[in-house]
Amino acid sequence: MNEIDLVDWIKRIAAPSPRLVLGIGHDCAVFRPKPGEDLLLKSDQLIEAVHFRPDQPPAAIGERALARALSDIAAAGGDPEVCLVSLTVSKRQTPDWIKAFFRGLLRLAKRTGTALAGGDLARADRVYCDVMVCGSVPRGKALRRDGARPGDSIWVSGRLGKPWDRRIQPRLALGRQLRGLATACMDLSDGLALDLHRLTKASGVAAEIDRIPLSRGATVERALHGGEDYELLFTLPPDAKGPRGTARIGSILPGRSGLIRFRGSEVEPKGYDHFG
Amino acid sequence: MNEIDLVDWIKRIAAPSPRLVLGIGHDCAVFRPKPGEDLLLKSDQLIEAVHFRPDQPPAAIGERALARALSDIAAAGGDPEVCLVSLTVSKRQTPDWIKAFFRGLLRLAKRTGTALAGGDLARADRVYCDVMVCGSVPRGKALRRDGARPGDSIWVSGRLGKPWDRRIQPRLALGRQLRGLATACMDLSDGLALDLHRLTKASGVAAEIDRIPLSRGATVERALHGGEDYELLFTLPPDAKGPRGTARIGSILPGRSGLIRFRGSEVEPKGYDHFG
Repeated sequence: MNEIDLVDWIKRIAAPSPRLVLGIGHDCAVFRPKPGEDLLLKSDQLIEAVHFRPDQPPAAIGERALARALSDIAAAGGDPEVCLVSLTVSKRQTPDWIKAFFRGLLRLAKRTGTALAGGDLARADRVYCDVMVCGSVPRGKALRRDGARPGDSIWVSGRLGKPWDRRIQPRLALGRQLRGLATACMDLSDGLALDLHRLTKASGVAAEIDRIPLSRGATVERALHGGEDYELLFTLPPDAKGPRGTARIGSILPGRSGLIRFRGSEVEPKGYDHFG
Repeated sequence: MNEIDLVDWIKRIAAPSPRLVLGIGHDCAVFRPKPGEDLLLKSDQLIEAVHFRPDQPPAAIGERALARALSDIAAAGGDPEVCLVSLTVSKRQTPDWIKAFFRGLLRLAKRTGTALAGGDLARADRVYCDVMVCGSVPRGKALRRDGARPGDSIWVSGRLGKPWDRRIQPRLALGRQLRGLATACMDLSDGLALDLHRLTKASGVAAEIDRIPLSRGATVERALHGGEDYELLFTLPPDAKGPRGTARIGSILPGRSGLIRFRGSEVEPKGYDHFG
């Protein structure tokens, strides 16, 4: 199976989109914007031995590669539209491995309305994957991390501290619900402490965490500093209530920009840093 | 220098764009489309030991990573708008290496009007870079590879068979000139034989090459099968003349879809195939 056969196979199993004027197999994908929308652009890498183990099922790796980028589209309150997938494999990955990878990725793409628009295939000594997602949002309505104000309440979706290898469910429906409601929003990828530090620093405020909804078997330490939760972290104006399935975890306070307290004690904003 | 410092540094030296509502440092970049435009999406990988040698200057590697994707935007007749850069480096790359990589990339970005909108940084065991470019084109005007018809003439920009390590000059001005003029267009990345085979196969036609403008020291073999030329290959209606700096190399013929002849003999469509 050479590159042309592989691209033809991918093209056959990928669902078309009326918004893709040109898709897989052309020099560029051509995407037609609608009046009154802003576009969201995000790319995310998934690398063998850094983000996954080579013995994980390829369909789960493919699904995860897309899910991580979709989580950021959810955090911006957007609808995913199209994605580009750049995949490098080593000689150890068979054509069946590559097909399973794309089947897993395309299953999630179909479920979330994301069309595969193109990408790039190469061979090197290990698996690298970079997924770029383009999403849309009504003009000016993208959720961002810099709008939290003192008095706002802090919320999260789901439970935190989950094991690293479980499936990611990008919170797209919740993200859309939060448009025009949340004052700030981001996804939890590097642990509550570091991500809330980023949100409060961008907003120029401090935060107090009162409680953390833990997933089964998780520790507070892991929820604060573990990462890979892919839930939404958001703030609401003083009297607003979070949608069903979300929990209030604390309050935004005036004070040193980026300062995080948990039950009265300062929490260090440590988490995963590739360059730390 | 940790990840936050590095992102701050990149943010400082990247030129802003009025079309980027949100850029570097947010969960997603937010790009505002204009009425009446289509968007072009392209991603391209550049991998250590596959596409470049680790001893090449980092600024040249960064420039090349962007130039390859811009060449595809040129082939579609588009204007580059924004890019996302996913970069993985190993422990061998110092902060100065990373900065030089981005300086080289951003110099070309500035010259071509491409704003850096975001991306992703990670560490693994070698350098891996994936650049996604989003370009724009008037609605319905994107050049594509499937419009060549018997009787059309075949043209290329520049000279072919250039050495692999020379700088890539994405043919953006020429691409724009060809909008509404060329019947088909693509960029030459895998050698004239394989790329013209792709163009003619997409168009359902055959082709005869009469002459090939060779770069100094190049062989016909290298021009046909060498790749990495990043010139534009395009077809024009029977009596049209190519813009200055382009040369006519042959004609589109009826016949077996994808068949290429050079001075009467069939040429095999071999070139670089990662999975061949």
